[in-house]
Amino acid sequence: MTKIVIVGGVAGGASAAARARRLSENAEIIMFERGPFVSFANCGLPYHIGGEITDRSKLLLQTPASFRARFNVDVRVMSEVISIDRTNKSVTVTNLKDGSDYTEHYDYLLLSPGAAPFVPSIPGINNPLTHSLRNIPDMDKILQTLQVNNVEHATVVGGGFIGLEMMEAFTHLGIKTTLLELADQVMSPVDREMAGFVHSEIQAKGVDLRLGTALTAVEYVTDNYIATEEAGETIAHQHINGHLQLLLSNNQTLNTDMLIMAIGVRPETSLAEQAGLKLGTRGGIFTTPTMQTSDPFIYAVGDAVEQSDFVTGKASLVPLAGPANRQGRMAADNMLGGSASYQGTQGTAICKVFDLAVASTGKNERQLQQEAMQYEKVYVHSASHASYYPGAEIVSLKLLFSLTDGSILGAQAVGKDGVDKRIDVIAVAQRAGMTIEQLQHLELTYAPPYGSAKDVVNQAAFVANNILSGLTQPIHFHQLDELNNDQLLLDVRSPGELERVGFIDGSINIPVDQLRQRMAELPKDKEIIVICQVGLRGHVAQRQLVNRGYRARNLIGGYKTYAAATQ
Amino acid sequence: MTKIVIVGGVAGGASAAARARRLSENAEIIMFERGPFVSFANCGLPYHIGGEITDRSKLLLQTPASFRARFNVDVRVMSEVISIDRTNKSVTVTNLKDGSDYTEHYDYLLLSPGAAPFVPSIPGINNPLTHSLRNIPDMDKILQTLQVNNVEHATVVGGGFIGLEMMEAFTHLGIKTTLLELADQVMSPVDREMAGFVHSEIQAKGVDLRLGTALTAVEYVTDNYIATEEAGETIAHQHINGHLQLLLSNNQTLNTDMLIMAIGVRPETSLAEQAGLKLGTRGGIFTTPTMQTSDPFIYAVGDAVEQSDFVTGKASLVPLAGPANRQGRMAADNMLGGSASYQGTQGTAICKVFDLAVASTGKNERQLQQEAMQYEKVYVHSASHASYYPGAEIVSLKLLFSLTDGSILGAQAVGKDGVDKRIDVIAVAQRAGMTIEQLQHLELTYAPPYGSAKDVVNQAAFVANNILSGLTQPIHFHQLDELNNDQLLLDVRSPGELERVGFIDGSINIPVDQLRQRMAELPKDKEIIVICQVGLRGHVAQRQLVNRGYRARNLIGGYKTYAAATQ
Repeated sequence: MTKIVIVGGVAGGASAAARARRLSENAEIIMFERGPFVSFANCGLPYHIGGEITDRSKLLLQTPASFRARFNVDVRVMSEVISIDRTNKSVTVTNLKDGSDYTEHYDYLLLSPGAAPFVPSIPGINNPLTHSLRNIPDMDKILQTLQVNNVEHATVVGGGFIGLEMMEAFTHLGIKTTLLELADQVMSPVDREMAGFVHSEIQAKGVDLRLGTALTAVEYVTDNYIATEEAGETIAHQHINGHLQLLLSNNQTLNTDMLIMAIGVRPETSLAEQAGLKLGTRGGIFTTPTMQTSDPFIYAVGDAVEQSDFVTGKASLVPLAGPANRQGRMAADNMLGGSASYQGTQGTAICKVFDLAVASTGKNERQLQQEAMQYEKVYVHSASHASYYPGAEIVSLKLLFSLTDGSILGAQAVGKDGVDKRIDVIAVAQRAGMTIEQLQHLELTYAPPYGSAKDVVNQAAFVANNILSGLTQPIHFHQLDELNNDQLLLDVRSPGELERVGFIDGSINIPVDQLRQRMAELPKDKEIIVICQVGLRGHVAQRQLVNRGYRARNLIGGYKTYAAATQ
Repeated sequence: MTKIVIVGGVAGGASAAARARRLSENAEIIMFERGPFVSFANCGLPYHIGGEITDRSKLLLQTPASFRARFNVDVRVMSEVISIDRTNKSVTVTNLKDGSDYTEHYDYLLLSPGAAPFVPSIPGINNPLTHSLRNIPDMDKILQTLQVNNVEHATVVGGGFIGLEMMEAFTHLGIKTTLLELADQVMSPVDREMAGFVHSEIQAKGVDLRLGTALTAVEYVTDNYIATEEAGETIAHQHINGHLQLLLSNNQTLNTDMLIMAIGVRPETSLAEQAGLKLGTRGGIFTTPTMQTSDPFIYAVGDAVEQSDFVTGKASLVPLAGPANRQGRMAADNMLGGSASYQGTQGTAICKVFDLAVASTGKNERQLQQEAMQYEKVYVHSASHASYYPGAEIVSLKLLFSLTDGSILGAQAVGKDGVDKRIDVIAVAQRAGMTIEQLQHLELTYAPPYGSAKDVVNQAAFVANNILSGLTQPIHFHQLDELNNDQLLLDVRSPGELERVGFIDGSINIPVDQLRQRMAELPKDKEIIVICQVGLRGHVAQRQLVNRGYRARNLIGGYKTYAAATQ
């Protein structure tokens, strides 16, 4: 009878426990969880705070009792595994309810400890109005602060997934919100110009977005409110009441009623490290593709482990629920005699930011540059479904690919509709090893309410292949700042569009449909840089020019991409 | 200078003309269109009739003038190509405005004539109140009938894409509608049990759905309304006024104010046939993968040509916009020296039916049986996004795969949200040659508003792999009618569910969470057929039983699939 001990009862751990039981009725399965809850919906926490998920109990997908009833798993909450004795194959557990310790033997141990919010040691950061958000107790503390303190203004530090979701939650609650982000953009999985769309949305919704700004000190100011103990008020109540004065890296100060620290997470490796398990180069627990650690009787999954990057093959830390769940399932298979093998992480992710979705898969341009990988890129801005059918929204898609073998390196998309679908489609194609050439042939669902006969993804592939085949000579938005005297900007949009949307100073305007008649106005000795709104008319114009003997390049993604980069 | 002549100015023809011009500024391009419009949104026609697309001009994506201005294409509408002289490489054209004929030489000819609605020769079918819908003039006639006749009841014959869309359009207009379908299901790309969900939706929206019913005769009854010519009324007006008496195959009669014939389309091959071009086995124009006909100077694309089926490699007729558009683009490439190659049609399609979407890709079960192909199938019914986040809807997904090599044979999905995405994901995976094993590893976008950590597609792959690996012994809904005395039905849902949702007579009820305690109630000498709502708890129960030495099979897709098959 195999005895499986699991450390951590959320995504990876709970998946492993359930799968192990389905594989074996005889295995003894014990799942330790340090907190009071198992298998809760950690991705849903910001939405309960914001009021979209009204029923708190919906976040509790399983209880220890329900888990035991269905899967006969011995779930022990408030139980922290504090050490591993690999020689004797046992763990020491502290019962957090009474402080007692005991040991438990294992045949196989699974570590699924997750990753903890990283809170830097900023002066004054430890105060009752500063929170991070990882689990149900954290959420409850935030809700309590909202109830007890009169929160009119909240500050969120960090523009990643949780930071953005908390920003949205506060805004939904009618709380004026400031978002501080050290980098020059939010949502680091996408590149700066794609984040520009998100910045516009955040500002349009009234959030005070401060990029390039760090938090340097916090002062907790009590508002001299004295708790009336006779009326049932407690000292704790009194302590929470107050506000924070934040000092920022630009020497500005900011008064706020509540502070959320969401700058990122770090893998919880102390237990593994103390047990002498190998850590990887990025500081996570090392595992083989079978999810085995350096000790073959100990497996590890989820946010605490280093995962192989699907594109580069290098170690990476990707704290996402999908990989954690699938890894847990595989670890269970392998502990019970199977041979499941994890096949790398693309980092496919999505975040809702008010009315926008922003999503990505694979590598972004910054990462490709860091890896010194050769790439080319295209942008399209195309309707989420037939533009003549009500409700169509623009999907802005960036596709990164190899010029040498046409492989898909990464993709990013932003928009109000159909963003998840396009990134999913490209994520599948990338995982399958499809090339940009093959991406043209994708046959996707089309009816006017759902798509277009030439889908956004087909269109991006068309543009990419036009570059690969030499039909399009591309120029990118960031190259417009480096033009020389032998180059000339030609805007082929209509004069009305230029006025309404904006244009680049110094460009000549000839609408695309007049270009054949007016081509003689253009000098043959200069390279013509063609600009339109999204790149489509520019392509038509650039082909005309090249076919008539001009040198011409098309601004990929058009003025819309250029403008987003400055937002 | 290459001279390209194109017959047909909609999807394939218009795509080819635009692409050809982008490739070559020198080519002479003439596009003939029999009707008055080019490049119109034929997929949008039902939605303009139903009032969702209010602005008729939105359906006209290009006009002859705009096409000429942008692409310098000589667009000639109301111009029917009536014959091809292959020896002299010329076509004879009738100018439908004045009846004159003339010839036009070509270097390359592209046929994109489309497919015409098939209207069987039913007695009385030719009357002013009977229409089919292919183009803008057809749409205008239907709108005119709606305006002039007092249409309180409409009848649609045929439950395919156009039939369903017209049924919805009439219902939106407040017109009581009857849908007649000869087969025992609508939406033939999906199998009968998946169509069951659509039948429920159609009936819930008040449509009189009559399956297994054909139209056998039509009588046009004028309502004795005399046109008052003095008041400006015309004879034509008088003629349109009236109603139809329909005779049905079950000998019932039905009075209706308007009849739409939408039983299907047939490729327009008369021009190709008359010119001696090879037709294929299915009656469409034969082409090579380069879209060349049997005459290397003549290309053909779209609904009129036979396409290679992606799964079987056999010839098929697939009248869909996506393939037509991409083929047109390829034909242009090849006429101008390229070497693009069409890579087969999966038939990926989707249809909106009121609040539902129904979609499919690849082969369905009927087709696999006709091809005598070995297959297995799974059903899952899973939330379109995290069930705890508002707005989640069930996606019912059927996945067909090969038991021998795990290849994906086809997929079908029905639901109110996220149906297009799941079929797109599987369509990409199928085209990429991914197996069911690889489908487990798909890394799709997940955040509570968009998906689940284990997506619907991952889940279907898990179930399929459990079957492939022998972990699950499946049984399917249609096999429940063939049980013998050695088999016993065990329903593991809660008693409340059985009462609320329904159950199969003769089944024993032990809720899954009580099964371990009560297993002794079950006989060891019988095979236990486990039933739950969607198949998930059934899997847990079936594994318990097998691990305890019982023989057990799980009803794949659960009671929900079983019930849909009878809807």
